[in-house]
Amino acid sequence: MTSERLPFDQAEYDRRLLMTRMAMALAGLDALFVSDPANMQWLTGYDAWTFNHHQGAIILQDADPIWWGRQQDTQGAMHTVWMPEGCVIGYESDLVSSMERHPIEDLARHISGLGVQNLGIEMDSQHFSAKGFSVLLQVLPDVGFADATGMVNLQRAIKSAPEIAFMRKAAAISDSVMQGVMKYADVGMAKNQLVALAYRDAMQGVDDAWGDYPAMPPMLPSGSDPAAGLLTWSGSPLVAGEDMTFSFSGCYRRYHAPLCRTIFLGEVSDEKRRAEAALIESLDAGIAAATAGSKVGDVAKAFAGPLGHGDDNGNGFGGLIGIAYPPNMEDDVISLNADSEAVLEPNMTFHVCPTLSVSGASVGIGQSIRISEDGAAEVFGGVSPKFATK
Amino acid sequence: MTSERLPFDQAEYDRRLLMTRMAMALAGLDALFVSDPANMQWLTGYDAWTFNHHQGAIILQDADPIWWGRQQDTQGAMHTVWMPEGCVIGYESDLVSSMERHPIEDLARHISGLGVQNLGIEMDSQHFSAKGFSVLLQVLPDVGFADATGMVNLQRAIKSAPEIAFMRKAAAISDSVMQGVMKYADVGMAKNQLVALAYRDAMQGVDDAWGDYPAMPPMLPSGSDPAAGLLTWSGSPLVAGEDMTFSFSGCYRRYHAPLCRTIFLGEVSDEKRRAEAALIESLDAGIAAATAGSKVGDVAKAFAGPLGHGDDNGNGFGGLIGIAYPPNMEDDVISLNADSEAVLEPNMTFHVCPTLSVSGASVGIGQSIRISEDGAAEVFGGVSPKFATK
Repeated sequence: MTSERLPFDQAEYDRRLLMTRMAMALAGLDALFVSDPANMQWLTGYDAWTFNHHQGAIILQDADPIWWGRQQDTQGAMHTVWMPEGCVIGYESDLVSSMERHPIEDLARHISGLGVQNLGIEMDSQHFSAKGFSVLLQVLPDVGFADATGMVNLQRAIKSAPEIAFMRKAAAISDSVMQGVMKYADVGMAKNQLVALAYRDAMQGVDDAWGDYPAMPPMLPSGSDPAAGLLTWSGSPLVAGEDMTFSFSGCYRRYHAPLCRTIFLGEVSDEKRRAEAALIESLDAGIAAATAGSKVGDVAKAFAGPLGHGDDNGNGFGGLIGIAYPPNMEDDVISLNADSEAVLEPNMTFHVCPTLSVSGASVGIGQSIRISEDGAAEVFGGVSPKFATK
Repeated sequence: MTSERLPFDQAEYDRRLLMTRMAMALAGLDALFVSDPANMQWLTGYDAWTFNHHQGAIILQDADPIWWGRQQDTQGAMHTVWMPEGCVIGYESDLVSSMERHPIEDLARHISGLGVQNLGIEMDSQHFSAKGFSVLLQVLPDVGFADATGMVNLQRAIKSAPEIAFMRKAAAISDSVMQGVMKYADVGMAKNQLVALAYRDAMQGVDDAWGDYPAMPPMLPSGSDPAAGLLTWSGSPLVAGEDMTFSFSGCYRRYHAPLCRTIFLGEVSDEKRRAEAALIESLDAGIAAATAGSKVGDVAKAFAGPLGHGDDNGNGFGGLIGIAYPPNMEDDVISLNADSEAVLEPNMTFHVCPTLSVSGASVGIGQSIRISEDGAAEVFGGVSPKFATK
């Protein structure tokens, strides 16, 4: 069926399938089991909160993809995928919590029926368990297995024009949320109250860009909170004289464009002003260096130069962005690390976020960018990167 | 360190550790690697959005638990766990996206150094990958491995008094959100606008119960949407004459108490009134039967009786609730299924949600309940289970 919910036209899905099949052929695979929900959505259109269960898409060289999941989720699948109904296969609900039998036994039966010889599996994905793999090995002793972690993620790295259009909508939502946060944040305000308004604005969206749930909640460390520790908020208040780093992404139809800004509740010390200047210099240098054809490692070094704290920014300067489901906002199949040999191509999209530690607290400025056909990368959204003050 | 962020006192963590060690001993394990973030939080206090990376807690019989994760997350760990700093071990950041080396090699080195002979692993958890397991097998050929999926989840089933107090706060937030939704929902309102207000109210919380992010976004199928398909919202409007089933959970410090109600935008047909009566009768019968000492299967049958559509309600009547991280709201280590042999104990907590299909649309009413010391289960929250009309 051609679902009325499908975000893209058939040509877009055909293109994606073709790219994936080429990658499979290069790896000698006649079938690929895709369990990462972002990869599954990219290939089939499937979009539902069912990725806490065993499910996936079976990609074949010479037949339509097969959606495979719980029986009670097949109706939702038929509403969201582009393949005909016969390509939607459910396993019985009593397998879900059975102690004796496992859902992957049902998958194995289908794989066997398809005559698959070499099956790729996303072995390091969070959505294919060690138990599932041991069941496959046991039930299908004659099938060859290969680790295909990242194979589809790499195909997703370069965005099509309609995907970029979705990301611009996500960026408009990110801008709206960040402008709101800069307006609402105040000394004494409990952090959860600020998060409440951020979520409201994110879900309200902007114009026809309705807000979808983001792959990650906002992060808003302040004062001497361990920014890098990714602790979420509490009911504690914003404190005068402290600064807060607010990270969030608007989401439109699962596409993201994260944004990170630092907000001061009071005066900005000279030391922090120097940090601000260095961070903006880092962004300018990195974004100028992020041209099509450049080596990712060189771009990371360009970001690192003005910061003076080595090449790695703790854990690199960012990763690929686009479709995302919790808990993964960024895709590290290409990371902006100094030792990366990957090469930038037009319409790759990244979140870049240089950070600095100042007097024990971390400050950062993050932008979402698109690699252009020529020249410097394009920055999504229009909120000034400068520190905001209240 | 005793973190100021720790939700419970040391006696509570000691009790949890003792129960877990007893279960380990019964299974012949001298160590257990806990990677499910809800289990990890329950045992150590660790609470951060880092569960998209390889991490976990190593539980031993005769030494404090060890937090193991990325180097850059150790600061956040030291802020949230009860163990001393020496029990927090980070692996180098360059392992995170390395193609040649894997983080689990670092874990294996520690397991080996501890002299572990029989290690339990949550093999069917989303947070321990097939790749991770194959690395362990390769690096530790002399260690025995056992599947310990659900072992800690079962220990978590019975809640302590402080946990119940947290769940009451979560229930107060759920009530506040649902009352708001019943007030705001209106014909022509875009669903994302309703979600925006629900998230705002959920994060604002109630009195001193500040809102934490829920393990699952709201679900609000309406009309003939495939309710069981767990499709999330879009920008489409609420339609006159249709009904909407709204499911959501407030969250306080990772504890949940989900709630589900059906709201009519217009008149309720006689057919739907009969469905409402049957659902309420089902809840009354099931909750009355859910006494300590009862067999779960018998309770499921009590819920099923008034519905007249067999014993299983599609996929059972609900699961355990408590601590949860996305994407899992409920824990199916005990599910309210007709064939379950499990026995209810006081202070087990469940979300129960009988559903009925009426003219192709699904309606349901869900409550969070606590098994009492004697008599019927206690219902959390106070919103009337009846269909709401606008």
